Amino acid sequence: MDRKSEQTFRHAVEEIKKGKSFLVASHVNPEGDAVGSTLALALGLKELKKDVTAYLYDPVPATFRFLPFADKVVHKINEDKIYDAIFAVDCGQRDRLGEEFDKIRNKGKLINIDHHATNDCFGDINIINPDACAAGEMVYDLLKEIPVAITLDIAINIYVSVLTDTGSFRYSSTTPKSFNIAGEMVKLGVEPWDIAQRVYESYPLYKLKLLATVLNTLELSNNGKVALLVVTLDMLNKAKASKEVVDGFVNYARTIDGVEVGILLREAKPGEYKISFRSKGRIDVAKISEEFGGGGHKNAAGCNIKGSLTEVKEKVIGAAEKKIYETAAI
Amino acid sequence: MDRKSEQTFRHAVEEIKKGKSFLVASHVNPEGDAVGSTLALALGLKELKKDVTAYLYDPVPATFRFLPFADKVVHKINEDKIYDAIFAVDCGQRDRLGEEFDKIRNKGKLINIDHHATNDCFGDINIINPDACAAGEMVYDLLKEIPVAITLDIAINIYVSVLTDTGSFRYSSTTPKSFNIAGEMVKLGVEPWDIAQRVYESYPLYKLKLLATVLNTLELSNNGKVALLVVTLDMLNKAKASKEVVDGFVNYARTIDGVEVGILLREAKPGEYKISFRSKGRIDVAKISEEFGGGGHKNAAGCNIKGSLTEVKEKVIGAAEKKIYETAAI
Repeated sequence: MDRKSEQTFRHAVEEIKKGKSFLVASHVNPEGDAVGSTLALALGLKELKKDVTAYLYDPVPATFRFLPFADKVVHKINEDKIYDAIFAVDCGQRDRLGEEFDKIRNKGKLINIDHHATNDCFGDINIINPDACAAGEMVYDLLKEIPVAITLDIAINIYVSVLTDTGSFRYSSTTPKSFNIAGEMVKLGVEPWDIAQRVYESYPLYKLKLLATVLNTLELSNNGKVALLVVTLDMLNKAKASKEVVDGFVNYARTIDGVEVGILLREAKPGEYKISFRSKGRIDVAKISEEFGGGGHKNAAGCNIKGSLTEVKEKVIGAAEKKIYETAAI
Repeated sequence: MDRKSEQTFRHAVEEIKKGKSFLVASHVNPEGDAVGSTLALALGLKELKKDVTAYLYDPVPATFRFLPFADKVVHKINEDKIYDAIFAVDCGQRDRLGEEFDKIRNKGKLINIDHHATNDCFGDINIINPDACAAGEMVYDLLKEIPVAITLDIAINIYVSVLTDTGSFRYSSTTPKSFNIAGEMVKLGVEPWDIAQRVYESYPLYKLKLLATVLNTLELSNNGKVALLVVTLDMLNKAKASKEVVDGFVNYARTIDGVEVGILLREAKPGEYKISFRSKGRIDVAKISEEFGGGGHKNAAGCNIKGSLTEVKEKVIGAAEKKIYETAAI
């Protein structure tokens, strides 16, 4: 189904023009695009002198607290307030809005703006564009359609959305439009080096120490086609690190020459591991994750498995080797 | 002096139009921009049915051997041949062309196309644009001026020039034009993920093992404002790694929260260390390097120091702490 053509920004613009008071929300565990697209839209509505609340169920991660308007984000829904419309941005499913979704649902017309092809259209108005590299790109399109002049504060949020969701303009989701938007934001005053330092070049010391420990766990199998890294609770405790710090470590396994599938096992609690799979492109790791009740995309997927470290290792390496064998046979 | 206005692409275009046979050359130890801009210009001239030789003194690094026309690069100057013009791209000084420079110098009119502000104008025609993010950007401008239609093979080379010289669109040299060129190259068929994997996501296994060892040498001083990493000959030998593998490791020191100066000491030979300094922006590390007879840019510089590891560490940490103290006092 081509969801793009169902409903368009025109429907959202109508609601914005006739309304006065809006809530903008995004998903739990927000990353750069969730935070950036929420704040860009909230700031855009403020430019129109609307009453705007930006809501995220979880705290804004430290990395993104420099974003303009990040300090105004609320984490509780005001029980008494009703809005003219609620925007959900970058949210593929309703439950991704967090446990307060039912409260949000009843507070006004729900406008769902998202770039995930799997979006289940939980809104009253659903504008889904899987070709957009980031929800921030869709907010950019919406602001242009209203139109709202893009201030530097809005530009910084849009830039960070596009930057982070394209992996610094590296992922296959990067399009000519991604580059054109980024160029326009830089013209408006965004400083690429300043942003890159804040987003990518700011490691807590314990993260680097943990990385050194984790890299030492590297194991290769299947003639170097599968690489596996392990993070135990003991390592996290010793480094005094939270589990979020581990995000991205799996990429070190994938980047090794000849590796087709990179795997990271993180001990979630004694006897249970959270598994991240990454592939270079050829192997569909979502299919591997599904075998263990997980899911994801072709090149990035995950699941949880119970068992001892040895058992879990055997299971995931076995499943990866099987998938590589099957893929070669096609 | 604004060198930009001295001579323009028009002078180069005249030489191209009247000539038949050209040599394109770049600097020793070529990186992405040197290789990409050389190959893009060579391929552009080939589109005009010219006779073209691409020359680099050193081999094309393995990472960049996938670039179209990279397999045609020669590393020896043909003693007998005379060209209508010689292009030097991305070369700040004549001796950067390599030991065969004098042979090159006598083979035709020398056209110097570069984006380094420090270029010493060693050519007969000198086109210097310090605002260009890469020599590849200048080759793009030249091809547009001729004009030559940009083929996919040319586009890949220009894209890699811009990508690598802006550090994946992160350095302060990144401009709206960098993004516009990248977007145009993607429109022409360049695949950002394919290129990014080849350029950034292909680590030999021993590099990752060496990284783990090097991260374990991390030392902080000056209240966490100076971070130091060490690579010894013993570590390189044990990892069976060449010294080039260490390039970029210094960035791990710089990325730590609160660090102002990141330093990497690499043992060049017993009793002598090659030092790399990186700053986040405030501290001028070129000034620190100059104290030891080295040089570089404000945020990236280097030098060589003789002595024992302990002596060299003390010297560089002391110099960095002094510079931080002086900078704070300004």
